[in-house]
Amino acid sequence: MEVMLGHVRTTPGEEMDLLDAAGRVLGEDIRSPENLPSFARSGVDGYALRSEDAAVHGARLRVVAEYRAGDRPGPSLHAGEAVRIMTGAALPPGADAVAWQEDSERDGDWVLLTRPVSAGANVGPIGEDLKQGDSVVPAGALLRPAEVGLLAAVGHTRVRVHRRPRVAILSTGDEVVPPEVRPEPGQVRNSNEVALAAALRQMGAEPLRLGGRGDDPDAIAAALRRADDADLILTTGGASHGDYDVAAASFDRLGAERLFWHVAMKPGTPFLAACWDSRLVIGLSGNPAAAITTFDILVRPVVAALSGRRGWRPFRAQAVLDQPVVKPSALRRYMRGTRYDQEGVLRVRNDMTQRSGVLSSMTRANCYVVVPENTPALAAGDLVLTVSPDLAG
Amino acid sequence: MEVMLGHVRTTPGEEMDLLDAAGRVLGEDIRSPENLPSFARSGVDGYALRSEDAAVHGARLRVVAEYRAGDRPGPSLHAGEAVRIMTGAALPPGADAVAWQEDSERDGDWVLLTRPVSAGANVGPIGEDLKQGDSVVPAGALLRPAEVGLLAAVGHTRVRVHRRPRVAILSTGDEVVPPEVRPEPGQVRNSNEVALAAALRQMGAEPLRLGGRGDDPDAIAAALRRADDADLILTTGGASHGDYDVAAASFDRLGAERLFWHVAMKPGTPFLAACWDSRLVIGLSGNPAAAITTFDILVRPVVAALSGRRGWRPFRAQAVLDQPVVKPSALRRYMRGTRYDQEGVLRVRNDMTQRSGVLSSMTRANCYVVVPENTPALAAGDLVLTVSPDLAG
Repeated sequence: MEVMLGHVRTTPGEEMDLLDAAGRVLGEDIRSPENLPSFARSGVDGYALRSEDAAVHGARLRVVAEYRAGDRPGPSLHAGEAVRIMTGAALPPGADAVAWQEDSERDGDWVLLTRPVSAGANVGPIGEDLKQGDSVVPAGALLRPAEVGLLAAVGHTRVRVHRRPRVAILSTGDEVVPPEVRPEPGQVRNSNEVALAAALRQMGAEPLRLGGRGDDPDAIAAALRRADDADLILTTGGASHGDYDVAAASFDRLGAERLFWHVAMKPGTPFLAACWDSRLVIGLSGNPAAAITTFDILVRPVVAALSGRRGWRPFRAQAVLDQPVVKPSALRRYMRGTRYDQEGVLRVRNDMTQRSGVLSSMTRANCYVVVPENTPALAAGDLVLTVSPDLAG
Repeated sequence: MEVMLGHVRTTPGEEMDLLDAAGRVLGEDIRSPENLPSFARSGVDGYALRSEDAAVHGARLRVVAEYRAGDRPGPSLHAGEAVRIMTGAALPPGADAVAWQEDSERDGDWVLLTRPVSAGANVGPIGEDLKQGDSVVPAGALLRPAEVGLLAAVGHTRVRVHRRPRVAILSTGDEVVPPEVRPEPGQVRNSNEVALAAALRQMGAEPLRLGGRGDDPDAIAAALRRADDADLILTTGGASHGDYDVAAASFDRLGAERLFWHVAMKPGTPFLAACWDSRLVIGLSGNPAAAITTFDILVRPVVAALSGRRGWRPFRAQAVLDQPVVKPSALRRYMRGTRYDQEGVLRVRNDMTQRSGVLSSMTRANCYVVVPENTPALAAGDLVLTVSPDLAG
């Protein structure tokens, strides 16, 4: 993982309207040009006053004005005066507290306070949310609803975000036909391309679909070479050691520098990482479940890094195992699981098939159960680590 | 919640290409038109054979052909014969097992098996993934990478999905100015609209931005009436009881039937639910943090239901509290928190301000800490329930 991340160059920035930038990664540190709010405001409907006038029980103040939210604050408040004020309205100069209307009795031009009011009560001070110069959102942050809301609140309606990473996907294998084609005996439809494209879009990346390109390393290398506007290249199939495994040969023809081959995980052992012209080229298993698993575990961190994300981590949580795992493995296993909660206590079902050629069981899963290498048999009720890279923040 | 969900009508369906449908909700039950795979295939590189020829140690078989993935399976295998076979290739008729190449020694046209091979070994049978007629993806499911991959695998390249819910957003309040306008003293920028629009897009809904419409119930009702193509209408501000609270008056002018007003939660007590012409009209607090909190807790389930989602639930998990919560409340609290894990053990920091007018602390949060009404003080180290509706599946 570290080896791959060392070869990642984050995408450059582009400027856009704030709402279009939601879901993107901020490419600049944004500091507040002003105090938010820029005025002291009332947090309740009530009476704005000078707290020294209201330190005792039963204070009686003259109501000299009425302010609604949006009103420009009027003249200074004098001793013994109050202003009827609505939630969100600016306090008049001189006022430093607001009496809640439930703690008052109105009597014509006067208001009687049934409780003392201390300085600052029910007031949102200037800069309560942000002070001028405070960080609004740092570079590398994902723009979620709160982030875009806060940027709008300080008037930052155009932002610089990282360009979506462009990720090329090429499927190897003479057996692979496009999904819209009816396969002959021995052929299979190219499901990996659409699954990976969907996973890339989930991460805010732009998939470039190169289609199925058979098993000829020269033809594959030529197709990859034309994807030189991609920030990352993924291939599926031909990534294990075998007479006809073609990913390694294709990457060699491309002139890519090999970083590593095979990872100690199951499914997904076939995994080839290389670097071509400053971009990673990654060969995944052709088995659909293995391709998605290695994408989730090993490629999502790369896409997050390309996107400029800082602090991205896969979501991880312990959960109580519902079914035993009896078969030990010398490889670290990432088993499909369905995590759910009972009053907040996380449990995980793992009673679906784990075969790497089987995709249907992944549609019933929402996490991986991580079983470290050489783990002895696990019993129902054991605590296990679950990981959901698609939920990461 | 149940009251609101009772007024939800899911959006109608629309047909589109599979990849464009990723992230949408399937509007039809899809069953497999065929077996997947449609042929028995080898799971390894090795030798396809008849298991009755390989039940003993040291069997020696004649290699009569070589099959690569994609090859159309050839003539039937006779007794004593084997076929050199690659991962993913179709087995020849008559073969019922594959010997792994690591358990064999090749000698010209012959192969010597160093281990016995039992029936079915290393074979992915016909229909291993899906049998003809099996459910591929049920109506109401979110189309994630595995789902679109599986649909592609069975050739279902056009799908019917629910139309994106259209959700109108209107901000009340004379103090509200558009984000690109520099506010006068007493005014604030309309951050709620962009935050809610971003949250709606996160959920696959289409926001319809009606802007800021002041405090006149007639003008607001007129603007809402023009949003009659929306599946849901949200307003912000004016939803509490007060002299100038306008949501209730506006909804009345619109002719909406009031369902309930105020919810026992903090922040976000101001919350008004009504039904107009078969669609929900919901008034949220104008306080930015309260608006997002009530959206997350109470409106996301409504949007999920509109979208046709079945089985949507907010993500919930217990976590260890990092800081005490000393102040008791008669209302259920949804405190901002930052959940993180230590080797899978979930912990939650909650040391940010919880004031409902403060949005900046929500940018540092990724969950809510749920503190039930009248909970006594909580200590650091206590287990609490956290909820993250934006991570829901």
